[in-house]
Amino acid sequence: MTHPHLPDPQHPPVTVVGLGPMGHALAATLADRGHTTTVWNRTPGKADSLVAKGVRRAATVAEAVSASPLTLLCLQDYPTTDAVLAPARDALRDRVLVNLGTGTPEEARAAVGRAADRGARWLDGAIMVPPPLVGDPTSVFLYSGARDVFDAHRATLATLGDPRHLGPDPGLALLYNTALLEMMYATVNGFLHATALVGSAGVPAVTFADLALGWFMPSVLDPTFAGHLPDLDRGHYPGELGTLEMNLHALDHVTRTSEEQGVHTDQPRLMREIARRAVAEGHGAESYLSVLEVFKKAARVP
Amino acid sequence: MTHPHLPDPQHPPVTVVGLGPMGHALAATLADRGHTTTVWNRTPGKADSLVAKGVRRAATVAEAVSASPLTLLCLQDYPTTDAVLAPARDALRDRVLVNLGTGTPEEARAAVGRAADRGARWLDGAIMVPPPLVGDPTSVFLYSGARDVFDAHRATLATLGDPRHLGPDPGLALLYNTALLEMMYATVNGFLHATALVGSAGVPAVTFADLALGWFMPSVLDPTFAGHLPDLDRGHYPGELGTLEMNLHALDHVTRTSEEQGVHTDQPRLMREIARRAVAEGHGAESYLSVLEVFKKAARVP
Repeated sequence: MTHPHLPDPQHPPVTVVGLGPMGHALAATLADRGHTTTVWNRTPGKADSLVAKGVRRAATVAEAVSASPLTLLCLQDYPTTDAVLAPARDALRDRVLVNLGTGTPEEARAAVGRAADRGARWLDGAIMVPPPLVGDPTSVFLYSGARDVFDAHRATLATLGDPRHLGPDPGLALLYNTALLEMMYATVNGFLHATALVGSAGVPAVTFADLALGWFMPSVLDPTFAGHLPDLDRGHYPGELGTLEMNLHALDHVTRTSEEQGVHTDQPRLMREIARRAVAEGHGAESYLSVLEVFKKAARVP
Repeated sequence: MTHPHLPDPQHPPVTVVGLGPMGHALAATLADRGHTTTVWNRTPGKADSLVAKGVRRAATVAEAVSASPLTLLCLQDYPTTDAVLAPARDALRDRVLVNLGTGTPEEARAAVGRAADRGARWLDGAIMVPPPLVGDPTSVFLYSGARDVFDAHRATLATLGDPRHLGPDPGLALLYNTALLEMMYATVNGFLHATALVGSAGVPAVTFADLALGWFMPSVLDPTFAGHLPDLDRGHYPGELGTLEMNLHALDHVTRTSEEQGVHTDQPRLMREIARRAVAEGHGAESYLSVLEVFKKAARVP
């Protein structure tokens, strides 16, 4: 139990700015675990249920940021965050701000400099779980930026989940987040297009998934695949176990079968085109993983 | 132990036509498990190592097919298979042929009729493992076509791996095979493009994979995802936990970040375009899984 009138070094005060579903979950979790928690939201009524459990509602952003050494920002995007913080600029000195909203790596890098101009430190982060999982010790939170700032607040951040520091480049958390999202969409699209393909012959998704998710997928990104990763970092793609040419043949087959079955063909056609480009760039006798060399370059026509 | 001069009902004779790496593995496994095995290959020398272990080398395809009630065909494609079988057409009566080469579902369906004209039964199959895993009881082999033919030869087919009968439509094995391959390529491309994206900020593939494959991917196609599958079959995509509109916003973010980081943008742009099309078709307030409705339709410009 913590005496409400004495500072508690184990549970330093925290401020949360922005009370969408995620900001709300952050503030509720911090308050539940014994942190003196202050919140601000453009629509003050969003704090009502938090105030009922002892959270302090600040009248202004400046008052909110002044209330705690650490402020978590959970707003829609960087332009919104900048606009919200503008009237509080004189309150930022010696404060640590952690952005948990969306943005691009460049926006995160620029924010660090703007914060420094006001005497503040800035970390960027990305929450990889939905609001109901905030507070679960296995919920991954990605952070990037100055390591000393992360270390100083690690215990508080660990209240929210499993905090991972990715490196000093402040853009890394958002970049990882974006890369993981892309991987998720590509994988789900692969499953859905495959489902459409077998569905064209009357196979239900449930039936296909039994084989596709129950047996096949766990075998794709397995330890054998992981064994090739050091080769990726060396740009070395040995083709002894199967060449890109063979895989291009298979992708041509996937594309023609999609046409024959009357389902959408853009996705297999793009995969075939990417493989063709890698062959044209001289990787035909290497492994399929050499398409990474195509992905590393900007497309010619953006 | 089996006496070499008496028929052995537990190990009926089998013929393998086509001795590429896969046909070779099939014949070697069958011979090792006690089946009288006959082979034919366009280049007879490919059978030398098999002959050394007691496999019979037929001089013609007709002789090979006549030697066993069951013939496994392991040739490059359907046109090759048809050309190879043409001189043996009078030997096909009362024989069972199982095609394990590549082809399209329509080719498989057409082959059943042509075989029936010669008094033969035809199954189509797909081998989901590389040659070294033939004979492992966990290696999945997909089959489709007449169930009674499959059941009659199930014990022999089980010598090669785990035989799965998908249904009476002879095109199903090749369709499943194609769909699973597409899913594999889409998933691997998702990982590789994500690797290029974080690589643009200097993150090694090995470092990224620790989080991406070790933690994130197993959470994507998990039991929660599987729980949505009956909804897919009903064309029902409830959006309470997140709408397609929100996912389109995220895919736009992935695309813009890919541009900002100077990596290839075709893949995220196509995913964004597919999501946009689904929104345009009225699915914006449904879940992301409603992109299946786009995939079910042929692309407008093939």
